Amino acid sequence: MNTKLVVNYLGQISIYYSFIFILPLISAHIYGEDLSAFIIPMIISMALGIAFYVASKPESEYAKYKEGYAIVGLGWLITVLVGSIPYIHYGVGFIDAFFETMSGFTTTGATIFDRVENLPRSLLLWRSLTQWLGGMGIVVLFVAIFPALSKKGETLLQAEVPGLKIEKIRPKMRDTALRLYATYMILTVLEIAFLKLLGVSFFDAVNHTFTTLSTGGFSTHTESVAYFNNPAVEFTIFVFMVLGGTNFVLIYLLLTGKPKFLRDVEFRFYIFILILSGIVLTAMNLGNYDLLESIRYSFFQVASIMTTTGYTTADFDAWGDSAKILILMLMFIGGSTGSTGGGIKVIRIYLLSLYSLNQILKSAEPRSVRLIKLNGEVVDWDILHNITAFFSLYVLIFVFSTFLVSLTGLDAISSISAVSATINNVGPGLGAVGATESYASLHPLAKVVLAFNMWIGRLELFTVLSLFIPSFWRERW
Amino acid sequence: MNTKLVVNYLGQISIYYSFIFILPLISAHIYGEDLSAFIIPMIISMALGIAFYVASKPESEYAKYKEGYAIVGLGWLITVLVGSIPYIHYGVGFIDAFFETMSGFTTTGATIFDRVENLPRSLLLWRSLTQWLGGMGIVVLFVAIFPALSKKGETLLQAEVPGLKIEKIRPKMRDTALRLYATYMILTVLEIAFLKLLGVSFFDAVNHTFTTLSTGGFSTHTESVAYFNNPAVEFTIFVFMVLGGTNFVLIYLLLTGKPKFLRDVEFRFYIFILILSGIVLTAMNLGNYDLLESIRYSFFQVASIMTTTGYTTADFDAWGDSAKILILMLMFIGGSTGSTGGGIKVIRIYLLSLYSLNQILKSAEPRSVRLIKLNGEVVDWDILHNITAFFSLYVLIFVFSTFLVSLTGLDAISSISAVSATINNVGPGLGAVGATESYASLHPLAKVVLAFNMWIGRLELFTVLSLFIPSFWRERW
Ligand SMILES: [K+]
Ligand SMILES: [K+]
Repeated sequence: MNTKLVVNYLGQISIYYSFIFILPLISAHIYGEDLSAFIIPMIISMALGIAFYVASKPESEYAKYKEGYAIVGLGWLITVLVGSIPYIHYGVGFIDAFFETMSGFTTTGATIFDRVENLPRSLLLWRSLTQWLGGMGIVVLFVAIFPALSKKGETLLQAEVPGLKIEKIRPKMRDTALRLYATYMILTVLEIAFLKLLGVSFFDAVNHTFTTLSTGGFSTHTESVAYFNNPAVEFTIFVFMVLGGTNFVLIYLLLTGKPKFLRDVEFRFYIFILILSGIVLTAMNLGNYDLLESIRYSFFQVASIMTTTGYTTADFDAWGDSAKILILMLMFIGGSTGSTGGGIKVIRIYLLSLYSLNQILKSAEPRSVRLIKLNGEVVDWDILHNITAFFSLYVLIFVFSTFLVSLTGLDAISSISAVSATINNVGPGLGAVGATESYASLHPLAKVVLAFNMWIGRLELFTVLSLFIPSFWRERW
Repeated sequence: MNTKLVVNYLGQISIYYSFIFILPLISAHIYGEDLSAFIIPMIISMALGIAFYVASKPESEYAKYKEGYAIVGLGWLITVLVGSIPYIHYGVGFIDAFFETMSGFTTTGATIFDRVENLPRSLLLWRSLTQWLGGMGIVVLFVAIFPALSKKGETLLQAEVPGLKIEKIRPKMRDTALRLYATYMILTVLEIAFLKLLGVSFFDAVNHTFTTLSTGGFSTHTESVAYFNNPAVEFTIFVFMVLGGTNFVLIYLLLTGKPKFLRDVEFRFYIFILILSGIVLTAMNLGNYDLLESIRYSFFQVASIMTTTGYTTADFDAWGDSAKILILMLMFIGGSTGSTGGGIKVIRIYLLSLYSLNQILKSAEPRSVRLIKLNGEVVDWDILHNITAFFSLYVLIFVFSTFLVSLTGLDAISSISAVSATINNVGPGLGAVGATESYASLHPLAKVVLAFNMWIGRLELFTVLSLFIPSFWRERW
């Protein structure tokens, strides 16, 4: 491990990060709120960054996956720790502040605030901004902006946006990162404009846009999107949630006049699951609502859960148990690769299903070889093996975390859904952590386990988990 | 597909099967109960067998995995269908009778009888016998006894006892099958003798022995083993359950003076999980019982669930939610390869854990190759890939089945646990299908889905699932 390089880059990230606090500072100034809530973390981040940077002059620029993992994994931890200072400043306890900030950057949206309306506006904006930044990736942002970081762009992005493979729009990673962020910015401006046109206040429009496109789901209202009680607003948010769960490369190509949407297998499967689940849930909910209402609430909730946004327009905890199981299933499927959505990802579920079918036939006819294709190309066996390994590990962690959370005294359904909602970066669960509840009442240990699940879920397991294996650190670079 | 050969062998199995009914016939004669309950299926089985056998003279003896799968998969279906006739004769509806018989042969032990004490003794014995036969495998038995079948012994055993690899005790499959059944017989005689010595009636001793060693769990008492309320009986059953969940090759080697027990990694891991879970559950239950009681009930339940027997000495549905989640986890781990236990199997969980750890390191250092060893030998990557594929498919089927069962109106925890208890061949679940309940009240569709889960669980997915893929049948042999 090239430790000096890791510390050096962590220093750089920390320095860049301090500039981010300018945004909430401006809002605090405008709203006449306490500036020190953001000046303190800004100074700490800058000081920490300079200390790291100066203390570690790397002897070599040598960096591989390992170093990328360490930089991104630990970079996220620093980001979250420093980012929780504004909450602590306003009197929130350390574990709760850490939970809320982790929930922000990982775009989970699980909250420990029972009533968000009581919070200062600049703090609410900071809360939404963490999701907007975390959605596309904070390291991606720094790679896009700062030339110094972009030298190691590929290594870092691989650790922050693991997916299956980063589809490069441009040969240089930095150009790709820039174009993805530009796409993100355009969608952001569009959604704010639409919401404003529909009568949503500017403050609410900005906040909800930040947390829609990032599939984060934090709201400035305790009732979430139900607060607006406006089908047009819901429909707008629905569309942008679905875009948030779409591969941003596809959106970029569309904006530059090269629509590849309809030929992309993952996008088609994504839309197929959304529509099918929407119809099934609508049918299930006919006992609770009339047809139009059922369509309205069911399709919104399917999109909100599957894209892992986690907004609510209805208390799905009051729906039937089969509806709840469907919701849990959708949480695990999640969004597309290269989107801001969490979960296992549509393409993995797609390939896993094909591969399973393949395995059944192979077991009956060991000598027959059936290739699996994706977008017309044969998928390498290595990729398929990686997907099953990823899925298995995901399930093992989910089961083990559920057991740990239940040990703190939480009931089974709440434990199962709390872990589902955090490892998949969704936000609200069922029961004690349901749509109308918060995570405030949970045992501190449960909060730590759940925050850990958000972290590994967002960075797709390996980046974070490898940090906990001693031999990862032990070996020399 | 060599269809004629498949039909021919199904005919043979059906003919041999008819002889099995001699045993319940004798008991019906002794107890002065209705003989026709067993004469009818005996005649049907014989007639069906002769018809199949005569109608299909195979042009070739050519048989591969495919044919083995078809013979075993469909052979089990015929066995269960004919085996449900005695229940139907006594007035049980078709779906319930099918459910109970599938639950028997697959050693699941889920029952649709609210009070088993009301049943004729010969029917109870038949019910226990189905588990004893299904535990070691009915095709294994026929291969051991009938020379005609043993020609295809290897192909058939591979389909009925898939596991990782059949460890051959003798070069000839038939000799291996014979020795495994002999071991089974010796344990059977031993357990009956022990239980009799402890004051259990001969009828109860035979029935409970049949369902202990097969890790089946059907009892002649509605209260299950709690009925005896005798620590010595519980301890005896505990020991034989643990033996039932052990690889019978190891037991055979022990009986022939070659103890390999302690050097076998799977056995060590199996005992390790049993003891660790027993201690954890004991600690969890200290709120419900005093220390000795807690040890007694917790260790019995851990062994009963992990070996997938499903006996109960306490209503674990009344325990805490973390205890319930632990119980669900143990269901999935299951017994050892080559045992009568169900579930994913200890060795798969062991290798899956090692492989996952390996994958984490590999993702951070793609060029490092770390080999996984088992009993001193390097495990082939192919085997590890098969295990993750098996695990993934297992999870997908579990999730999808849970959703289907919940659609019939069953609540979430009951649905989750009902599928866990059937795909893993355990028996009792939680909630509506808990330890003190039966499966009687479930919707017929739920019963069909659950019976299907027992079937695929017992034959380890592939044998049964391949039957449902059209191309499996389409291609010529
Ligand atoms: K979310
Ligand atoms: K059982």
